[in-house]
Amino acid sequence: MRRVAIIGAGQTPYGDFPGLGVKELFAMAFKEMLESVDKGIDPREIQQAYIGSLSAGSGFQLGQLAPLLMGHVGLPNVPAVRVENACASGGFALYNAINAVASGQCDIALAAGVEKMRDVSSTKAKYWLGISGDTEFERLAGLTFAGIYAIIARRYMEEYGLTREQLAKVAVKNHYHGKMNPKAQFRQEITVETVLKGAPVADPFTVWDCSPTSDGAAVVLLCSEDRVKEFTDHPVFIIGYGIGSDYLALQDRDSITSFKATRQASARAYRMAGITPKEIDFAEVHDCFTIAEILAYGDLGFGEKGEVIRLLEEGETYLGGRLPVNVSGGLKSKGHPIGATGCGQAYEVFNQLRGRAKNPERQIKNAEVGLSHNVGGSGGTAAVFIYRREG
Amino acid sequence: MRRVAIIGAGQTPYGDFPGLGVKELFAMAFKEMLESVDKGIDPREIQQAYIGSLSAGSGFQLGQLAPLLMGHVGLPNVPAVRVENACASGGFALYNAINAVASGQCDIALAAGVEKMRDVSSTKAKYWLGISGDTEFERLAGLTFAGIYAIIARRYMEEYGLTREQLAKVAVKNHYHGKMNPKAQFRQEITVETVLKGAPVADPFTVWDCSPTSDGAAVVLLCSEDRVKEFTDHPVFIIGYGIGSDYLALQDRDSITSFKATRQASARAYRMAGITPKEIDFAEVHDCFTIAEILAYGDLGFGEKGEVIRLLEEGETYLGGRLPVNVSGGLKSKGHPIGATGCGQAYEVFNQLRGRAKNPERQIKNAEVGLSHNVGGSGGTAAVFIYRREG
Repeated sequence: MRRVAIIGAGQTPYGDFPGLGVKELFAMAFKEMLESVDKGIDPREIQQAYIGSLSAGSGFQLGQLAPLLMGHVGLPNVPAVRVENACASGGFALYNAINAVASGQCDIALAAGVEKMRDVSSTKAKYWLGISGDTEFERLAGLTFAGIYAIIARRYMEEYGLTREQLAKVAVKNHYHGKMNPKAQFRQEITVETVLKGAPVADPFTVWDCSPTSDGAAVVLLCSEDRVKEFTDHPVFIIGYGIGSDYLALQDRDSITSFKATRQASARAYRMAGITPKEIDFAEVHDCFTIAEILAYGDLGFGEKGEVIRLLEEGETYLGGRLPVNVSGGLKSKGHPIGATGCGQAYEVFNQLRGRAKNPERQIKNAEVGLSHNVGGSGGTAAVFIYRREG
Repeated sequence: MRRVAIIGAGQTPYGDFPGLGVKELFAMAFKEMLESVDKGIDPREIQQAYIGSLSAGSGFQLGQLAPLLMGHVGLPNVPAVRVENACASGGFALYNAINAVASGQCDIALAAGVEKMRDVSSTKAKYWLGISGDTEFERLAGLTFAGIYAIIARRYMEEYGLTREQLAKVAVKNHYHGKMNPKAQFRQEITVETVLKGAPVADPFTVWDCSPTSDGAAVVLLCSEDRVKEFTDHPVFIIGYGIGSDYLALQDRDSITSFKATRQASARAYRMAGITPKEIDFAEVHDCFTIAEILAYGDLGFGEKGEVIRLLEEGETYLGGRLPVNVSGGLKSKGHPIGATGCGQAYEVFNQLRGRAKNPERQIKNAEVGLSHNVGGSGGTAAVFIYRREG
């Protein structure tokens, strides 16, 4: 199989854009992607497109979104397909695009994600997000995703002595990072007290434990190893990648304080890359709720379950620490436009590895290997990617 | 890249199954697939799953359907993803699954499709099918897919002298074939008169020009060349495959009497297989409406546009003819459970090539090379596969 590199990436700011539909959001990210290709690229070089989206605006254009978007940027005849695994749709779009290049079906493929969530009320948004849980055993019983993750958080607190304050520190860290990211939805610092005093959502969560609903799009351009030099001398290679799945309903799982899908996806990615978690310089992980980042630390092998709380307590996952996590602000502060998230993570890793985090204060220094981690729903699916800069 | 073969396939009957949900339909097709593997297979050998579905029952479980279904057949930890391109969702699931094996990400992958359409009124079904047209320029203007294809048919009649009776002959042929297929939804022969006297749907179509709404599922099991012998001595190799896209809205296209997406997909598949259309022994093509089969003849290179009407007039595309098309009954008579259709076509080709069409009267004799052709919506996307039996 052929090695695959990222040669360009673009991302809209995440947030509330009443004047922009999915087409405009996609075009904005697409334009930045083109401009990021060091030696330039004729868009007609793009041979295939894989686009992640859960529901493209709560029902606006559920079917065949991918060719619709490619048509809008003037590339109607680039074969395009939508890939959907809830909040991991972007990660799985990236996965399938890599396979298309690795298998030799094409040399240059686009992976992207887009979601338009702010054009409906949050009640409606909650409803359509619920379609990604187990409908029979969770959604129809009235469980929202905040409720599902709150159950997980309570259990984790019980089993590992995680405190409410420690949980809040995930949000505090990610808002600290997000404040520096000009593309983040929330650019304000918060304190543990802010989190604890926030409006209750699902015990133990307040609104500050939850990622927002967001509009946004992200685009990543992939190239086969043999053609990379035509477009850049600073490619970022995807040296390992893996996917995993599990039962959707929590009740069916062996454990609810760990996501088996993440463990499997990361084990595959580490094996393919031939490295251990210790060699990861920084990571973008799926913190849809504060507890999710704590789960990710353990499931990605950053430390033992329970013991990983230390990473946060001791500042290791802050920018400047041993293993910065979610320097973008994460889903919590940067925003979480469902289908876009997985490719938006790749955008951040790509720019950090190339020393182009834009705002110098948020640039991770001397990083060579990055990781991104995208979760579908409450752990029904996961995709993990390991990146290394070469040049 | 590695060569990929089909080693097993299963399909539910297509039709109206009020007692069966998407899980049960998928499990039924999955079971037949397992039983079709000549030397048997432990289901735990399956390493990845790609599942096509447009909306899994008009909104029942739109998100993360793929892991839900795999959990239901006892394989919750097989990484699974949903692939969506409207009526071509199954074909694109198959495409992505082949790439996963060809790229070396796994040796054994499942491609499947499922749709549950008969639990809503046909008005509702029409509405949610409409999400796959161009929402802004077609759906919101009131165009249904029958309307879109009727416009195409009128234009074709005008440009190439296709008569209303000739159009009807597509339905007559496919019902003739479907009558012999125990899994077809409509097993009755019809005449040109039946078609012409049917209830009007969208001029020139009557209800007999339109494929039905259907419940159904289909499953195909893929294996890398090096492991085929463990499972069968009669594999069917996928020797060529390709995909294509176009603008969703008819108004944006160069021509509406040809689908560029099909032309591109088939050109790629023929090139990869190293063969010409003349070497195809039989084909399953996307006849969602009668005119669609006429378009397919031209776009797949079976003859020149306009001139292809002759294929039907002279009986060449009937079972026993030079190039039998839709011996399964096609979408028209076998049924069209959106997401399942592309994999159901592969199921038919697989069985025909292995001499196992079940009902001997419908077995194509001495066929070596088959083709399947799956279209998304009104030609926004297309996927084409070329198969050859080896052994």
